[in-house]
Amino acid sequence: MYVKILGAAAGGGFPQWNCACDNCARFRAGNFRGKARTQSQVAVSSDGRLWFLLNASPDLRVQIEATPELHPRRGLRDTPIAGVILTSAEVDHVAGLLHLREFQPFRIYATPSVREILTRDNSLFKMLERNTPQAVWTDIQPGCCFAPASAEGKVQELRCEPIRVAGDFPHYVSPERRAALPDDAAVLGLAINNTQGACMIYMPGMPQVKEFLPRFHDCDLLLADGTFWTDDELQRVGASSKTAREIGHLPISGKDGSLSQLAEVRRPRKMFVHINNTNPILDEGSEAHAAVRNAGWELAEDGWECRL
Amino acid sequence: MYVKILGAAAGGGFPQWNCACDNCARFRAGNFRGKARTQSQVAVSSDGRLWFLLNASPDLRVQIEATPELHPRRGLRDTPIAGVILTSAEVDHVAGLLHLREFQPFRIYATPSVREILTRDNSLFKMLERNTPQAVWTDIQPGCCFAPASAEGKVQELRCEPIRVAGDFPHYVSPERRAALPDDAAVLGLAINNTQGACMIYMPGMPQVKEFLPRFHDCDLLLADGTFWTDDELQRVGASSKTAREIGHLPISGKDGSLSQLAEVRRPRKMFVHINNTNPILDEGSEAHAAVRNAGWELAEDGWECRL
Repeated sequence: MYVKILGAAAGGGFPQWNCACDNCARFRAGNFRGKARTQSQVAVSSDGRLWFLLNASPDLRVQIEATPELHPRRGLRDTPIAGVILTSAEVDHVAGLLHLREFQPFRIYATPSVREILTRDNSLFKMLERNTPQAVWTDIQPGCCFAPASAEGKVQELRCEPIRVAGDFPHYVSPERRAALPDDAAVLGLAINNTQGACMIYMPGMPQVKEFLPRFHDCDLLLADGTFWTDDELQRVGASSKTAREIGHLPISGKDGSLSQLAEVRRPRKMFVHINNTNPILDEGSEAHAAVRNAGWELAEDGWECRL
Repeated sequence: MYVKILGAAAGGGFPQWNCACDNCARFRAGNFRGKARTQSQVAVSSDGRLWFLLNASPDLRVQIEATPELHPRRGLRDTPIAGVILTSAEVDHVAGLLHLREFQPFRIYATPSVREILTRDNSLFKMLERNTPQAVWTDIQPGCCFAPASAEGKVQELRCEPIRVAGDFPHYVSPERRAALPDDAAVLGLAINNTQGACMIYMPGMPQVKEFLPRFHDCDLLLADGTFWTDDELQRVGASSKTAREIGHLPISGKDGSLSQLAEVRRPRKMFVHINNTNPILDEGSEAHAAVRNAGWELAEDGWECRL
């Protein structure tokens, strides 16, 4: 199984367009030790030829161009991207579907609620319905495994299990609309296995970890929510009145943070993804960065890849 | 008046994610004489401090990061971007509004129909309504001039006139929805003057030119539709069954193309914008490129700027 990280930042990316927090300001001034990151995007493949995107980042166009494996190979219009697996309807997970207009067939896996939010409440996505086939939507459910397939039905030798994660539908979904949605699976994690038994887990939103520990202990690669360092991180920069936990992200630090709670998870390669621009771990000279690295964690970077 | 071109390509950009036309294939192979271009985006300012975006490109996040004038200047959250002026509801003109989420106040100028398409038919844009003020929508009409102002009412010393251009609403707007829209101004051009009388015209979609000739003769900078070289360009690459004219773009070449029809327009600096990835003028070694340059036209490039 091939895994590529095309974007390692949370919503807004790093730096973020309207942010002058310590990280963003120093990055733009050229005195920051650390890398820019585009918004969260992962791609997986069993054979290195047909690829599935995990979510669709608002930065997807530049991410595809930066990734030769995802370039067209033959004919006038072509793509190795067979489909997209959505873990939520958050803007930073779905806006990139609009980059994939242009009459190209591909499959989209989503829960019925996420599909309805996009296709019924947002006419823009009709741009994915101009060809037959173009976007082929396939419903998924927490706990129900599937083998990702292209729009034409070409099946990958992968087994994908959507994992229910506590969390709400995005802010843009009204209370009335929420009440009418067909299911309450607003946020998913994904466990992806290949036929040789290698397993990766992708969990860009992770409000707690306890129930997932047995899975984490058994996997080979854990791409875990690294959005915030502290629970009050957005409050400190004046960007929100909400805590990290309140918006579905367990902070990394603190006695009940992810670093502490996952200290005993030793088998997998552990990597933080979906890192917010305000997170001090982005600064490679920071104590936070050193703490994460010393605890055996890696920080996802755009362009990172591995083979399981 | 300051004018910056942040993106010079049509929808899809150059190269385009799923395109292996002669231009895109050679560009990726490294044997193309010509530059990559992101999707169409222009920014204007009367003072170089407060900026208005003309449309909101799907590539807006990377375009802002590539443009120091548009970076935050003070405080934790800040932007010199005061607003966005929309010329249509096409995806490549509006998707970038989603990059501008993050609780930031700014003004959006649009016709009532374009505003309704975005705010009533696409719940995603509720992400721009989380603060008060955040997105402040202001209706515009063809022929009715306005002075662009920030969300807080700080007025720029510019005068902007929306120009009615023939054209349809985007494909994603259903026939029933079209029938119920408050106006039929689907496509606009913009004429922008400063107090010293300098004038630029921005017309990324231009199905014909005759009625605009008097304006073109009088302006100082003409940013004109350079989408296609020939009328059958999309048909030739198998990307569409429609001609350039049928989708609102007068081709450049031919006896009634824009090059010929605008040959006598001598006063303004003339520049083609919104250039499609299939257009041979992108190839600086091509006859098409030479023809355009010899006729006194420039090709817009990402990062180009001028002062009028």
